[in-house]
Amino acid sequence: MMNMTAQMMDSSMAMKSMSGLDMAAMQDLIECCSACEQACTVCADDMMAMGMTGMSKCMSMCLDCADMTHTMMRMMLRPSGYDMTVMMAQMDACMKMCMACADECMMHAEMSEECKMCAEACRQCAAACERMMSAMKTMMPLE
Amino acid sequence: MMNMTAQMMDSSMAMKSMSGLDMAAMQDLIECCSACEQACTVCADDMMAMGMTGMSKCMSMCLDCADMTHTMMRMMLRPSGYDMTVMMAQMDACMKMCMACADECMMHAEMSEECKMCAEACRQCAAACERMMSAMKTMMPLE
Amino acid sequence: MMNMTAQMMDSSMAMKSMSGLDMAAMQDLIECCSACEQACTVCADDMMAMGMTGMSKCMSMCLDCADMTHTMMRMMLRPSGYDMTVMMAQMDACMKMCMACADECMMHAEMSEECKMCAEACRQCAAACERMMSAMKTMMPLE
Amino acid sequence: MMNMTAQMMDSSMAMKSMSGLDMAAMQDLIECCSACEQACTVCADDMMAMGMTGMSKCMSMCLDCADMTHTMMRMMLRPSGYDMTVMMAQMDACMKMCMACADECMMHAEMSEECKMCAEACRQCAAACERMMSAMKTMMPLE
Repeated sequence: MMNMTAQMMDSSMAMKSMSGLDMAAMQDLIECCSACEQACTVCADDMMAMGMTGMSKCMSMCLDCADMTHTMMRMMLRPSGYDMTVMMAQMDACMKMCMACADECMMHAEMSEECKMCAEACRQCAAACERMMSAMKTMMPLE
Repeated sequence: MMNMTAQMMDSSMAMKSMSGLDMAAMQDLIECCSACEQACTVCADDMMAMGMTGMSKCMSMCLDCADMTHTMMRMMLRPSGYDMTVMMAQMDACMKMCMACADECMMHAEMSEECKMCAEACRQCAAACERMMSAMKTMMPLE
Repeated sequence: MMNMTAQMMDSSMAMKSMSGLDMAAMQDLIECCSACEQACTVCADDMMAMGMTGMSKCMSMCLDCADMTHTMMRMMLRPSGYDMTVMMAQMDACMKMCMACADECMMHAEMSEECKMCAEACRQCAAACERMMSAMKTMMPLE
Repeated sequence: MMNMTAQMMDSSMAMKSMSGLDMAAMQDLIECCSACEQACTVCADDMMAMGMTGMSKCMSMCLDCADMTHTMMRMMLRPSGYDMTVMMAQMDACMKMCMACADECMMHAEMSEECKMCAEACRQCAAACERMMSAMKTMMPLE
């Protein structure tokens, strides 16, 4: 069963002019970005509340990662504007951000359950970016 | 079964210092905001692709609604910063935005399946704001 | 001399269908929101780097304030979608957010120059919201 | 004379642990991102109001560009989280987005003064990304 966003994307005008695209990979990336943004936002807030030292880089990277996955999600949700060069570059940046944030969060995984869950969400999002990058190479507007 | 965001919120430091809060209403609002932001973003993009006249107000309101529900979601995800006066005012604004956007989208519901689904997501988000406003009146930090 | 945003707003299609609006108050609010978002973002990052205890509420409120002033700015920049009820509610929420964030930041003003400057940016933004709320009461679409 | 954001960055804790960074290039990128986000937001809204056909890609790209330059700005404003690999990838993506959006807007420059100004803001932002990428290669945390 599809969720509402997938249904809307599926029946949208702009999507109908595309061919060869992998809707499952798109939907997966949208959901992973959304989950990653939420995880990073809660994780940063929890680190603030814990007030431990040495976590500034991790908090700041979580905030960056939340903003970047949010922008990645928004771009995926706007098929009218797809530009392959831009999308590939953005997915590359998003994947690198998620991997770096996962690494940083894993350093605090023993002290913080939030960091551990956040790292997992980041990894899943990085993997979704990678799959979409592979899929997008075969995804071109008909014209 | 709880999703990851709900789990993270539940075990976060800041949440433990609150009492009397309605976690179900919070989680519901977070999910409704996320769904509404996605619906509004796709809906606006689809209206652009359709290129019909007379839809500028609807497109622009969908973009506003996407930004506002996103901010509402982010604020809910940061329990460390909860301030009741601010949260109540933001939920009131978000509820009014969602209702106005739903009304505007419903004017095009016969022409656009996307507008119809978007209106539904907006209504659900407005209702979630309303429930959370009721719940928040009884939600105070312990201190 | 007007900056580019003011010039673009001034010559935009949607603005031409409005009457009685106070362009100076609008432009002022846009600039104050932008400055406030930047100040709050830097202030939160600096508090993270300082690693002092007891600042979690301030950091979290700065992040909320950055998101909210950003959304307020975006809404002002989209005249096609202006809805008076929604705009008034959002300005009210934004004003309350800025005032609460300014109060919180002022508690750390002696320890942190960043908090002091951030509080000032928040106050200016709250005042700009208030002026725009007064101005907007007389601002109606012609139709 | 420095503006407030530049002053805040200059005196922030995280910036003091960096060496060899080009504060002028950083500040320039922050300002160009902010101006570009505003220009893209107004431009998209104006195209909606004009209601001309064939502009869906341009509108959608302007929205993407607004989100991306906003995220780029936020990341620059958080020195605690700087990671060179991530920042370089994000600047590359932002530069490509701005160039693609400028090209698209220039196609409508004769019909729309807003598109012309937006294209100019996009070009300046792309150039600022390029300068910062050069500068960042020599910018490393002390440790």
